[in-house]
Amino acid sequence: MPAGEFAAIARFERLFGPSPQGEVGIGDDAAVVSPPSGHLLLAADAIVEGVHFDLALVGLADVGWKSVVVNVSDIAAMGGTPLHALVTVAGPSSTDLDMLYAGIAEAAEHYGCRVVGGDLVNSPLLVITVALTGTLDGQPVLRSGARPGDAIYVSGPLGASTAALRALRSGANANADADGGAVSAYRRPRARATEGVALGRSGVVTSMIDVSDGLVADLSHIADASGVGIALDDVPLAAGATLEDALGGGEDFELAFTAPPSAAGDIGIDNAIRIGTCTRDPGQRSLGGAPLPVVGWEHQWGGSKAT
Amino acid sequence: MPAGEFAAIARFERLFGPSPQGEVGIGDDAAVVSPPSGHLLLAADAIVEGVHFDLALVGLADVGWKSVVVNVSDIAAMGGTPLHALVTVAGPSSTDLDMLYAGIAEAAEHYGCRVVGGDLVNSPLLVITVALTGTLDGQPVLRSGARPGDAIYVSGPLGASTAALRALRSGANANADADGGAVSAYRRPRARATEGVALGRSGVVTSMIDVSDGLVADLSHIADASGVGIALDDVPLAAGATLEDALGGGEDFELAFTAPPSAAGDIGIDNAIRIGTCTRDPGQRSLGGAPLPVVGWEHQWGGSKAT
Repeated sequence: MPAGEFAAIARFERLFGPSPQGEVGIGDDAAVVSPPSGHLLLAADAIVEGVHFDLALVGLADVGWKSVVVNVSDIAAMGGTPLHALVTVAGPSSTDLDMLYAGIAEAAEHYGCRVVGGDLVNSPLLVITVALTGTLDGQPVLRSGARPGDAIYVSGPLGASTAALRALRSGANANADADGGAVSAYRRPRARATEGVALGRSGVVTSMIDVSDGLVADLSHIADASGVGIALDDVPLAAGATLEDALGGGEDFELAFTAPPSAAGDIGIDNAIRIGTCTRDPGQRSLGGAPLPVVGWEHQWGGSKAT
Repeated sequence: MPAGEFAAIARFERLFGPSPQGEVGIGDDAAVVSPPSGHLLLAADAIVEGVHFDLALVGLADVGWKSVVVNVSDIAAMGGTPLHALVTVAGPSSTDLDMLYAGIAEAAEHYGCRVVGGDLVNSPLLVITVALTGTLDGQPVLRSGARPGDAIYVSGPLGASTAALRALRSGANANADADGGAVSAYRRPRARATEGVALGRSGVVTSMIDVSDGLVADLSHIADASGVGIALDDVPLAAGATLEDALGGGEDFELAFTAPPSAAGDIGIDNAIRIGTCTRDPGQRSLGGAPLPVVGWEHQWGGSKAT
């Protein structure tokens, strides 16, 4: 970065394209955009070098991609669609910002949100914080709406991210993605953006969360917010994943949600997998009748659930 | 933080108060708020331990205060008022989060914005990123509207933050603020929030920026964006500040702005100090007829101006 911060900002201003007439993007003190006509959703998540990513295993473009996806996933878990992104990068001056921002731009384009600003500051450690705005038609799907008797679903098999990380760490396939795309579950995770919108619009989904901390931890958030128990029958495993990966491995970014069993045909997506039922006992956390193990991200306060 | 992230989030949910009816604050995947009726302003800035603050010189509550103020200042520099804050803290698990969030809450209350979410993640280094929404009546004041002949103003004397930092580093007064409040310019800087709104509403201010990187750097942003030169006559010094502090010391958070000289009585605030004139030569950067020194924050890309 010989040309310094201001030259970098000028390049990213071009990378992220011109603003619509009457709006202001990167390059002033604040961005100026049109507010949505519906609810304004706001989410922010940070990813930290050595905690959420390992630059020995992923590229900077992957890191940029992921920094956006973790936030799109939060917006999707409300039933919303992302609108604008503020990208704040704190990192060493040796960081290849063009590579990082290429991944950010790729994800922003993929999920249809516009990078309108952010910050770029020096730091001995790379920390990327993305804040997203979003909106939705109708009402947001909260964590607190599950009712006893509701069926519990996930939008797909779980544990893919943890299984891919294990494969990468074992040295298999560190530079390519030859195993049928499994490693991409870790390097290029996908947010279930269209699924989140469809589930929200269905009108029958009573609660929703994205599986970012791990299924047990995330379903516990729904259980705690809704005052229900969780009785799981079975958990679908992604290729290569163990049950522990599926229960405790975070960052799969599948959606977990609840709906009355009578509404099974109306939830709005085809690929949902029913995994259990909400119960009346708010203390219940079971799988196949046995207590669920306490698993999840090994963090003191390393999760990403404050929104 | 023995009780972990989720307990901390529950405490901050109480600290930042209940959401208005129909809105959702801390504790779900994203916050849900009402969009403003006018423009939606968006800004994000990060502050990094060892780069933007030194925990040997300031307390964690001061750090929290500052993380909000730097962003309020960006919103003010558009003529706007802040609405919502997303606070993302990446830091060691030993961090006294209650102290940090107390400062954040104090600043949010002072400037009338509501903390509605954010993130809390583990990191060996403390990095705090705040994203703010804001709004304004009428049109935003951009950096690009200055015209040759416009007078250049600042909202107050400059260099106070750098002078206070020097006093703190010299060991004078490290634990108190007995020197008439000067040290508070560094520990508890103020954003010119009401001044920004008044200047924006005046209708005669042609460009504006907050002095966060240093007067020379920040006026250069206006000059570059507007295609004008900068001819300064004199720069008002804060108590204890040198000319270099005033020209290059950032983080004073005064507003620098331009307006036609004929509109001097209509700019909307009483305490403005005229410091120079915009010229036709876009390469000009002078003080009292001599070239302005190249000074400013000593950073590779450590400033805070991407919005």
